[in-house]
Amino acid sequence: MKKREKISDAVIKRLPMYYHCLKGLESDGISKVSSNIISGLLNITASQVRQDFSNFGEFGQQGYGYDVIYLKDQIAAILGLDRRYNVIIIGAGNIGQALAKYKGFKNEGFDIIAAFDVDAKDGKTIGGIPIYNYIKLEEFSQNCKIDIAVITTPSESAREVAANVKRLGIKSIWNFAPVFIYLGEDIAVENINMSESLFMLAYKANNLKII
Amino acid sequence: MKKREKISDAVIKRLPMYYHCLKGLESDGISKVSSNIISGLLNITASQVRQDFSNFGEFGQQGYGYDVIYLKDQIAAILGLDRRYNVIIIGAGNIGQALAKYKGFKNEGFDIIAAFDVDAKDGKTIGGIPIYNYIKLEEFSQNCKIDIAVITTPSESAREVAANVKRLGIKSIWNFAPVFIYLGEDIAVENINMSESLFMLAYKANNLKII
Repeated sequence: MKKREKISDAVIKRLPMYYHCLKGLESDGISKVSSNIISGLLNITASQVRQDFSNFGEFGQQGYGYDVIYLKDQIAAILGLDRRYNVIIIGAGNIGQALAKYKGFKNEGFDIIAAFDVDAKDGKTIGGIPIYNYIKLEEFSQNCKIDIAVITTPSESAREVAANVKRLGIKSIWNFAPVFIYLGEDIAVENINMSESLFMLAYKANNLKII
Repeated sequence: MKKREKISDAVIKRLPMYYHCLKGLESDGISKVSSNIISGLLNITASQVRQDFSNFGEFGQQGYGYDVIYLKDQIAAILGLDRRYNVIIIGAGNIGQALAKYKGFKNEGFDIIAAFDVDAKDGKTIGGIPIYNYIKLEEFSQNCKIDIAVITTPSESAREVAANVKRLGIKSIWNFAPVFIYLGEDIAVENINMSESLFMLAYKANNLKII
């Protein structure tokens, strides 16, 4: 991919949503799409869509729209989805097990290669993925390149686990524990706080337009 | 609570995070907190924290900081967390089961009262919650007030289920299926798209500052 102008953070935040939407259109066999269609699917104004897409060097043709695959590939390259990632899960409780069993990540380029839990006995699997005792993580990380650690431990241990993950040289954390994790600018962290989303839902529900 | 000036959407989006943080401080027995501490915990600038908190009629006292419980209660009232919600789960796959088993929502005021699945036989439970066949949803909704429907179905059925939920008069949807759901301004929807969060993590990992 050619070096491009820096894309603003506001636009970057919308890229995963566009990517997801374009993938859906592609799998439905749609090759051209208008900004109005995308606007309707994602509840973003069509002019915002056009402005965002102008960052990728494509301008929809009047009456034809945007090329779905071209745009999807451009966005994938910006996000780093044109490669594969080795993922481990730490914490094999309800959420950890659900993620281990979910087959959708593989299609997106994310291979779950192992799970770890303080209570795990070696030799077991969840959803076909080997599960090891947490004390084996250091040794495992020396033998196998880990790109992403998913933290699904209870909140009490999440920060300690995150610090250990950073110490082992893993550069990305996907955190599902209900604590905010931030470990500085040299490690990438995405916090999924389900309670916060639920709180926002409560707010929205209490502030609906009365029609 | 007194009627207050309208708080901007940008501030509202940060409230769930503040609420969660303040609850954590409260449970750690901390009664006063400075904007600098909150800034460090949440990776927001202290001046942003002070500006946001000024919306709730509290101004931290120099050298003493903010009253944790007062602020938490103010934010809870704005978000609508000063009441309880009846929640159902639709789709008893991996994620649906994990949510049904998770005990943390009850502490926040969200009571999961039932789960529904197209393959369910009546009389079973998951994590103590009764599970019914999806064809029973309409009857159930007539007998029991449902505040929130959690959608954890496969993506193929999510939009149809969401439309049915809206038809039954349920006013809030918490969507975990990997499709974007928007049903107009008279129904509240929060979409949790885990893949999109993972895509953003990939982007962050590929754009770390090299130190």
